[in-house]
Amino acid sequence: MPSEDQVDTRGTDRDFIQSIERGFAVLDAFGAVGPTPTSAELAGATALSRPAVRRILLTLRKLGYVTDTGPRWSLTPRVLSIGRHYSAANTLVEAAMPHLVELSERTTESASLGVLDGTEVVYAARVPVRRIMSINVAVGTRVPAYATSMGRALLAWARPEVVDRVVADTVFEQLASSTITGEEDLRAELARVRARGFALAAAELEDELISLAAPVREAAGTVVGVVACSTSAGRHTPDSFRDAAAASVVDAADALSRNLGFRP
Amino acid sequence: MPSEDQVDTRGTDRDFIQSIERGFAVLDAFGAVGPTPTSAELAGATALSRPAVRRILLTLRKLGYVTDTGPRWSLTPRVLSIGRHYSAANTLVEAAMPHLVELSERTTESASLGVLDGTEVVYAARVPVRRIMSINVAVGTRVPAYATSMGRALLAWARPEVVDRVVADTVFEQLASSTITGEEDLRAELARVRARGFALAAAELEDELISLAAPVREAAGTVVGVVACSTSAGRHTPDSFRDAAAASVVDAADALSRNLGFRP
Repeated sequence: MPSEDQVDTRGTDRDFIQSIERGFAVLDAFGAVGPTPTSAELAGATALSRPAVRRILLTLRKLGYVTDTGPRWSLTPRVLSIGRHYSAANTLVEAAMPHLVELSERTTESASLGVLDGTEVVYAARVPVRRIMSINVAVGTRVPAYATSMGRALLAWARPEVVDRVVADTVFEQLASSTITGEEDLRAELARVRARGFALAAAELEDELISLAAPVREAAGTVVGVVACSTSAGRHTPDSFRDAAAASVVDAADALSRNLGFRP
Repeated sequence: MPSEDQVDTRGTDRDFIQSIERGFAVLDAFGAVGPTPTSAELAGATALSRPAVRRILLTLRKLGYVTDTGPRWSLTPRVLSIGRHYSAANTLVEAAMPHLVELSERTTESASLGVLDGTEVVYAARVPVRRIMSINVAVGTRVPAYATSMGRALLAWARPEVVDRVVADTVFEQLASSTITGEEDLRAELARVRARGFALAAAELEDELISLAAPVREAAGTVVGVVACSTSAGRHTPDSFRDAAAASVVDAADALSRNLGFRP
């Protein structure tokens, strides 16, 4: 049996603190239900009892993460700060910012850094394009890996067991007119991504969206993120966007990889 | 006594779930201790026992918010997603983005939306400037209200009891060469901000930083946020930045206020 000084990080069910899981479940349910749900709506979305949700809300209110107006609850800006230490301390995000700024400058399109989390890609950093009509995607936004250039560039060089797990856990859906919806098609696409060095997706997540992504590697060669650039169908065809932006996206990803110690 | 169907939002100590507080305390301690703390370091930073921290870490790992390499722990990108429903659902953030993009375009400087949270300002949205050497401030970053143009523009039109509470809770520190460090000086500055319609701070948070902020009002006239623009001492003096940017910052804040239903 380990002494208290030894760190036993295996953990058991006995170690799991359900209240913490429920606290996060209630915070997450605000997205499912709408910006100002009632506690009953949050109970419905989390499958928790109304008294349990009420206690959690009162706790989160005391901690400053939610606030209430009459029977309706809303998140406070303090929830934005929960993730701030990830960005502030993360070498990848910090190293990526200048490259994203330069990429956005060169392509006059939005530039993003994506990282894999389960079957989804999380936007870890983003430089929005300076056009009023551009799509605003906040840092922390999650998109399905199978339907995005970011996800496919992350999976193309991932270990086989990672790809197998993502494929097994993915629920394929026809999200837009050209979405890849089968495992075999996805695996064939990953092979094409490896062959050309970047991923391209058009009308897969949304009909109007075209995006390009290239892998970022750390010193040991592992792909730890992707640099991506996206545009709209009103501005580009997939071919014209590839011609206009692919080299810049790959350059930015390669330069960031070199900053992280990768030597090709 | 209220029935279960009535929402009693007063709450009592009995309703407070300490495990949830401790879960957030451990997540927050990553910033205090460094990017990859040990559980012992996190215990030191949170004043929790090592067994308690270990159980919380194992719970957060199971939820996907932290990961471990040997004895060291780090945050995962999933923590970025905890706050995403605030940005996605928040009328203020959504309405602000086009104005921030335009402001950044007009001034060729970074543009931000700030909101008050306790004695601090939280960056709720940000359009970084396209210059490689610019300061990167992530959404969710917190800065003290007394030492920033954002905080002073938020306080200048706040209810007296809000100002009194912030002043009472603030620990004034000489953060840079010109930081306002006294309550009377701060209150005098708030009067000047009200008189000229915007706040200006130079060498208060950091010696190199100059920033401007103007209030954003909702329909009833309450200040709900600030639009801000910042530059560095290498590019501007406080006077030249005021001449170059103050009108644009005020215009952006006023346009956003009109979007929110405010009629002057």
